[in-house]
Amino acid sequence: MLTIRTATVDDVPVIRELISELAEYEKRPEQVRTTEAVISRDGFGKHPEFSALIAEWDGTTAGFALFFGHYSTWRGAGLYLEDLFVRPELRGRGIGKALLAGVARVAEQQNRLFIRWAVLDWNQSAIAMYGKLGADFLDEWRTALLAGESLKKLSEHLPLTRT
Amino acid sequence: MLTIRTATVDDVPVIRELISELAEYEKRPEQVRTTEAVISRDGFGKHPEFSALIAEWDGTTAGFALFFGHYSTWRGAGLYLEDLFVRPELRGRGIGKALLAGVARVAEQQNRLFIRWAVLDWNQSAIAMYGKLGADFLDEWRTALLAGESLKKLSEHLPLTRT
Repeated sequence: MLTIRTATVDDVPVIRELISELAEYEKRPEQVRTTEAVISRDGFGKHPEFSALIAEWDGTTAGFALFFGHYSTWRGAGLYLEDLFVRPELRGRGIGKALLAGVARVAEQQNRLFIRWAVLDWNQSAIAMYGKLGADFLDEWRTALLAGESLKKLSEHLPLTRT
Repeated sequence: MLTIRTATVDDVPVIRELISELAEYEKRPEQVRTTEAVISRDGFGKHPEFSALIAEWDGTTAGFALFFGHYSTWRGAGLYLEDLFVRPELRGRGIGKALLAGVARVAEQQNRLFIRWAVLDWNQSAIAMYGKLGADFLDEWRTALLAGESLKKLSEHLPLTRT
């Protein structure tokens, strides 16, 4: 039996585990720098940065979806799906689609008009599933990321008013 | 003289104009479905979905940056930069970099560890500037978007618990 439920602070350890398992699947295990304390504070504190759904199969944790608000100046409010993961041994049961449907339901309930997310270009099984569900791929856009020293240096670039 | 300042509700008409000008520059003028009323409610209402900075050159509106919170389960909290635009006749004065520096400053002030954004793959001048500032391009990721009827259909896919 499949159950999809909203994550609570009690799920922080399992969410942190699933984040690591997803990073391993994505061949980037060393990239995960968040701790249980950070996930707990950021997801379940006073000003939550994200929400999560947990999928259980016969009472065992099967996967998760983690998402938060996003905005498009063309479309209006939407959701950004940061993580969608089903444990390898439990794939092929429709759990990924069920999690995505859970996120779609949240979007409908909150009047959010789209879900946006990123998928690794070699993950053909996921790409095929998303295509079947009607997703568009925004392949003319490149994603840029500025962090660390470069971000700090840029932030010191100027006073907010200058001559 | 260049001034970068935080947008207020009084800037909604000019923000809506700049959104249209950016969409025209991006060759997608027909994609803009948000109105001044939507921008006003979503940016300056009870639960703001975004913030914006306005650049002025000698008192004339020169461009804007529009952004909001984003989250990475690898890195923690960051910002997503939805729009960065400088009017064509005012380019080459460092206004785009100054706007991006303003967003970087907000990130530093809010303890947000990165800025993420998207750029059209033919926009070589912007790509070159971002590279010079130290941005990484996440070119192994494809962006997916689910909206409209496909989103609605998926949201009706299942009860949150099923057998």
